[in-house]
Amino acid sequence: MAGKIGLNVTQICLPRECTEDEIIEEVLKLNEDPRVHGVYLHLPPASLTSRVLNTLRPEKDVDGVSDLNVGRLVRGDMNQGFIPPLANAVMELLARHGEQRKTVLVVGGEGPLGVALQCLMQRRGMVVLHSRRSSEVLQKQVCTHRCMRAHTHIHLHMMSGVGPLTAALRMQNVVQSSSRWAQGQQYRPWTLRSLKLQPLSPVPSDIEISRAQTPKPVDQLAQEIGLLQEETEAYGRTKAKVRLSLLDRLREQPDGKYVLVAGITPTPLGEGKSTVVIGLVQALSAHLKLNSFACLRQPSQGPTFGVKGGAAGGGYAQVIPMEEFNLHLTGDIHAITAANNLVAAAIDARMLHEATQKDKALYSRLVPSVNGVRRFSPIQIARLRRLGISEIDPSALMPQEVSSFVRLDLDPAKVTWQRVVDTNDRFLRKITVGQTQFDIAVASEIMAILALADGLGDMKTRLGRMVVGSSRSGQPVTAEDLGVSGALAVLMKDAIKPTLMQTLEGSPVFVHAGPFANIAHGNSSVLADKLALKLVGEDGFVVTEAGFGADIGMEKFFNIKCRASGLRPNVVVLVATVRALKMHGGGPNVSAGSPLPREYIDENLSLVVKGCSSNLRKQIQIAHLFGVPVVVALNVFKTDTQAEIDLVCQMAKESGASDAVPCHHWARGGRGSVELAQAVKQAGSQPSHFQFLYSQETPIVEKIRMIAQKVYGADDIELSPEAQAKIDYYNQQGYGKLPICMAKTHLSLSHLPEKKGTPTGFTLPIRDIRASIGAGFIYPLVGTMSTMPGLPTRPCFYDIDLDPVTEEITGLF
Amino acid sequence: MAGKIGLNVTQICLPRECTEDEIIEEVLKLNEDPRVHGVYLHLPPASLTSRVLNTLRPEKDVDGVSDLNVGRLVRGDMNQGFIPPLANAVMELLARHGEQRKTVLVVGGEGPLGVALQCLMQRRGMVVLHSRRSSEVLQKQVCTHRCMRAHTHIHLHMMSGVGPLTAALRMQNVVQSSSRWAQGQQYRPWTLRSLKLQPLSPVPSDIEISRAQTPKPVDQLAQEIGLLQEETEAYGRTKAKVRLSLLDRLREQPDGKYVLVAGITPTPLGEGKSTVVIGLVQALSAHLKLNSFACLRQPSQGPTFGVKGGAAGGGYAQVIPMEEFNLHLTGDIHAITAANNLVAAAIDARMLHEATQKDKALYSRLVPSVNGVRRFSPIQIARLRRLGISEIDPSALMPQEVSSFVRLDLDPAKVTWQRVVDTNDRFLRKITVGQTQFDIAVASEIMAILALADGLGDMKTRLGRMVVGSSRSGQPVTAEDLGVSGALAVLMKDAIKPTLMQTLEGSPVFVHAGPFANIAHGNSSVLADKLALKLVGEDGFVVTEAGFGADIGMEKFFNIKCRASGLRPNVVVLVATVRALKMHGGGPNVSAGSPLPREYIDENLSLVVKGCSSNLRKQIQIAHLFGVPVVVALNVFKTDTQAEIDLVCQMAKESGASDAVPCHHWARGGRGSVELAQAVKQAGSQPSHFQFLYSQETPIVEKIRMIAQKVYGADDIELSPEAQAKIDYYNQQGYGKLPICMAKTHLSLSHLPEKKGTPTGFTLPIRDIRASIGAGFIYPLVGTMSTMPGLPTRPCFYDIDLDPVTEEITGLF
Repeated sequence: MAGKIGLNVTQICLPRECTEDEIIEEVLKLNEDPRVHGVYLHLPPASLTSRVLNTLRPEKDVDGVSDLNVGRLVRGDMNQGFIPPLANAVMELLARHGEQRKTVLVVGGEGPLGVALQCLMQRRGMVVLHSRRSSEVLQKQVCTHRCMRAHTHIHLHMMSGVGPLTAALRMQNVVQSSSRWAQGQQYRPWTLRSLKLQPLSPVPSDIEISRAQTPKPVDQLAQEIGLLQEETEAYGRTKAKVRLSLLDRLREQPDGKYVLVAGITPTPLGEGKSTVVIGLVQALSAHLKLNSFACLRQPSQGPTFGVKGGAAGGGYAQVIPMEEFNLHLTGDIHAITAANNLVAAAIDARMLHEATQKDKALYSRLVPSVNGVRRFSPIQIARLRRLGISEIDPSALMPQEVSSFVRLDLDPAKVTWQRVVDTNDRFLRKITVGQTQFDIAVASEIMAILALADGLGDMKTRLGRMVVGSSRSGQPVTAEDLGVSGALAVLMKDAIKPTLMQTLEGSPVFVHAGPFANIAHGNSSVLADKLALKLVGEDGFVVTEAGFGADIGMEKFFNIKCRASGLRPNVVVLVATVRALKMHGGGPNVSAGSPLPREYIDENLSLVVKGCSSNLRKQIQIAHLFGVPVVVALNVFKTDTQAEIDLVCQMAKESGASDAVPCHHWARGGRGSVELAQAVKQAGSQPSHFQFLYSQETPIVEKIRMIAQKVYGADDIELSPEAQAKIDYYNQQGYGKLPICMAKTHLSLSHLPEKKGTPTGFTLPIRDIRASIGAGFIYPLVGTMSTMPGLPTRPCFYDIDLDPVTEEITGLF
Repeated sequence: MAGKIGLNVTQICLPRECTEDEIIEEVLKLNEDPRVHGVYLHLPPASLTSRVLNTLRPEKDVDGVSDLNVGRLVRGDMNQGFIPPLANAVMELLARHGEQRKTVLVVGGEGPLGVALQCLMQRRGMVVLHSRRSSEVLQKQVCTHRCMRAHTHIHLHMMSGVGPLTAALRMQNVVQSSSRWAQGQQYRPWTLRSLKLQPLSPVPSDIEISRAQTPKPVDQLAQEIGLLQEETEAYGRTKAKVRLSLLDRLREQPDGKYVLVAGITPTPLGEGKSTVVIGLVQALSAHLKLNSFACLRQPSQGPTFGVKGGAAGGGYAQVIPMEEFNLHLTGDIHAITAANNLVAAAIDARMLHEATQKDKALYSRLVPSVNGVRRFSPIQIARLRRLGISEIDPSALMPQEVSSFVRLDLDPAKVTWQRVVDTNDRFLRKITVGQTQFDIAVASEIMAILALADGLGDMKTRLGRMVVGSSRSGQPVTAEDLGVSGALAVLMKDAIKPTLMQTLEGSPVFVHAGPFANIAHGNSSVLADKLALKLVGEDGFVVTEAGFGADIGMEKFFNIKCRASGLRPNVVVLVATVRALKMHGGGPNVSAGSPLPREYIDENLSLVVKGCSSNLRKQIQIAHLFGVPVVVALNVFKTDTQAEIDLVCQMAKESGASDAVPCHHWARGGRGSVELAQAVKQAGSQPSHFQFLYSQETPIVEKIRMIAQKVYGADDIELSPEAQAKIDYYNQQGYGKLPICMAKTHLSLSHLPEKKGTPTGFTLPIRDIRASIGAGFIYPLVGTMSTMPGLPTRPCFYDIDLDPVTEEITGLF
């Protein structure tokens, strides 16, 4: 937008028999259309009734008729006096957009006004184009003129047969209107109203805390953070999708600081990274009064009804309303499920039809005659291109070409695409549908694509590129070969827009995408981060989260997500807990459902020391491998003693952290994370020397070895024959430059979950290797991964209920 | 609402250390809360700054402090002059709500004002309660006082220590504010702005027509049809969910006319019932200027990507934007899929856990000790009740009781619950997951429940009542037994709100629910119809559609849907086409994908005559069985000749139709259906003598026989031994009073699709009988039904594409 301002003037031309109501309807539409800067009422005088004239907004009126409230055009003698102020207004407008040297002004019409204006502008050093030609030709000329690409232009398409006075009036009106519009397009400073939080002790349940707070209407929040009305799509009162056009509008706006929250190797109970993200943003926005945004992953619904533990944060650091966050949200995961299963159905249907029909029959069905005409669809033409067939007349293909066109010849044993449901349903793990099985929805490659795409076009390309299996001759078969890529883009067109929500203290949150952290990269979406970085502005902060421990989530954030997005992180916040540190220091096993051993409840400084000097130190070093400063956030539990807290902070700093601070967001909200916010602000002002761990050009095996050795601390890797064969195949297919997405346990730096602390002296076994070509990474399998969780004996749905009168939900965490 | 007006006055009491900003935030909230009619600023004088005072809306100010803009309460002498106008204001308010006789006024406080007002009101024939007691006690007293149930009341809770002048001022303010609020709650006449339609010839594709029209913003449409702002939840700019609270607000408002669109027995190509619904509503609203609403079913996404043919109407009678209608809409079907599959996962998980654990282990997991306390969840207490166990202390159950509580003992061979996906995926028909298989999502019983529920409470009860299988001892096992009923209600809490959209001419449309028309009742939701009937008002029209031919869809509409809703239809519109009539008259086969034989393209009056005197006449007679007048709508195709059109209209009237008219909505929009709209208006003014075909008390076999004989024209029915056994079982379980939902082909009045016209002399075979206990019907199977469609060789997704720049969809119909 900035750098190119188009002034659009339109005229109303309606059929003669139009009623007054119909004219008014048109005018109302144009009044509301922000792309139209001026309206010229080209109507018979009888139609210019006072109702019509009063309807047109004065600032859009290019005739001045509604100002004067008469039904005639204002006509007058040539009055040069109008020209200089007009030229000034134009110059001012241009200056505001940073273009003073050579600017192009296009005037349609060569009447005295046009000529006068032209002279004046040329004297001021501008290039002026003018034309009598039709609007379409003019538009084309403007677009192709070389100067135009680099320069601001103003396009005034003037009506013929209008006197110069009128024209001058018009142009001034339009310039004013457009200035207002252009101003509206600029970056807007925030006017964020924080929500007051009065934490109770003991801390109530998550849903009680969430329900006790009244969220701001989402349209109000959107306005507060500088979104234009046309950039949001509300979904109910507390959620809105944000349109990607924002990226265009704020293209020239500098990004804010980019903060990643990662963690040390966790216990199976999790160490609270999401609460740290939310607490930190609450502190930055509500307490330090800095623009800040949290970017979170959308959780799968499966676990919501299985085991307790929401993904919306917890305690006094939550996204609200938490039940909206944890349920359907704005339907993105449902869209992924629908798209994923459409691919699966298309695969099996195609195999059936290929198995039961001859080439000719297939061809006549795939390229049918419609009203006597046979034509390839664009999706089919793309397949012809891949096959090296340039012919586009269906009747001119050679039989051999027809055969290669109609036969994907999928090898049933090599279909890699799975069906998905968004339910924890262990019984779907092993059923046989052809050769496929069911995964949970968030494990779909489509989810990984949603998280990595940087726009609608990129997403569509990636969806088409997804490899669903290979043919009997070993060629990869893609979603586009199945003809389904356009339909997938259609199903995902709304899912690509991030969802805006808010924290308990009223700070903005984007919720978008939630790919698995083992078979995929486990980070929220590139687009949400990009939108947020523009919105917070140069001095603001965007806090995003990586799944699992830093050895997995952060490594993938840097090597996969930042590589795809081009964004560069400023600070890593590394979350630690005394509990996890004690485990790494040699404490007994921690497992869900069993009471915590005493070591975790009583003070035990020696376990803490060992944990800090092993896992915590190693994870800090991993972040430093990438050249990014680290702040350690100790997520304090009520059993932690002051001596333990002090010890962790001291040892973290000794291990190279820029700072290390205790956080109390769970019990106190943003106020409990102010110290962390200050540390992050401080670290963000330091220079970051970000670098990737490996270059794309490095061979696949070497990339895997670098991650295993430098990040996990392995002596070496060991490839199974299957893995080696896959690497050869991927190299041959040209996939060798893709980044690596390790599928490894998150419970240890090694591949063995029971090895805590900093394991050494191990060789990392690579069992198999797979590829997500659409998402754009190769994922080596280290051990076995379940992509479909199950339900426990007493799923938490027993406690979940809805009051039909108040519509309140109970028991959801 | 009407009949009971509560005036709510609240006071602001904040902690001492509150900042000015925090006070203002509270005031802003109360300003916006429509339930609060007055605010009393009970604050230390220092806090009553001019910013605070200026924030409070004058009409909500019960102190008058913001009017006077000073920081002190107005105090003055007793001034009796304030009392009579106040009493008048109260009387007027009450009168407006139709309560003049005996009304209760509750005044908290017995100061001089209270006494004076009390005397005055009593003199005017009112019962006055007054009380000094706390608000809670007062509220309770008001609620339990017998008079209150039938009478309007005003509840003024006055602060102590406030002089009468202040109090009088306050009350007057509050009464005024409340009058305004009460007025806002009343029925609002429509101010519908129609969208202009300029039909082109030849008629462009559906998506081109849809895209050429700019829909009104949905919040504007909502306002035009009298919805309050707080009653809608926008989903983007063109769809909004409507809250059920509307039914409460307009409880006293008379319903509009209720019009059902049904059809004669169709060809496999369908005869355009949906377009008739939409065309009729466009004609009624945009051309006859009558309030009218279309209620449509939400289509499954499966066929959208399989075979061409949208469900949003077609040509110039469409719901727009049609792509939104045909894709995710507001996620209701996704919610059903999630809920359905959660039940499936819960069944299999429970069977696994029961098979691998002893009673004691199961019990300790199902009723765990949390912080030392064991407690049944409410859902578990409901199961105990069904088992006849009144004990609620988990430790006091007898071992036998524990066993019957923990063991559902589901018989794997008798699990009837299926998993669903919303994709045409034939490969999921026959896979084995335990004993279950996959259906398409709209075949889920949860969809039928959504369509029949009359509120959130009713839906929750029905969801809990769903029978998912039976135990080895033959007892039905319900969703509530699985513990999942609350979670289902939570998943469905938004789906229960109908979605508001609009036609091409800007008339309102509800899209809600879309159950299968064979194994379920095939009608859109009861709730959408009820909301629409209130909104259109007494002289308005609600047009709803029944699936399949009148023998199936209309019969189920009457016997199942109207029985559940209590609504009574005024008119049946029976849709016929010359094409279908010729087929019934003996024309050759019509099938999708093959060119139409000549008989259907050339004039053929003798086939038309035979079709009219067989199928059309019979379907009219079926509607008359239920006592409802019939208007025949001939959906005109361009190949129909004038002689054919005249013949159909003439014969329809001779067969008892109130009227019969040709419709041209497809080519001309509402203007092409004006004649139909007039006929429907005329028929709607006639008395309707609606009656059910059978009473609920009739035995199951007799109900089936009545439908077979009276509706289908069968000689008798023939029950398989399985069917007879099921009937005995259902009778034994107390399901005998449920209505019948026949699962029969829609391509013939008989069970044999090839028998066209009016088949006679056949016996209807009942192969098996099933039951949807939650939805509340029994469904006999006549022949085999596929509940999972497949994809053709060239699914229409080949043509579907998305332009990533303009975001325009192409190829969707």
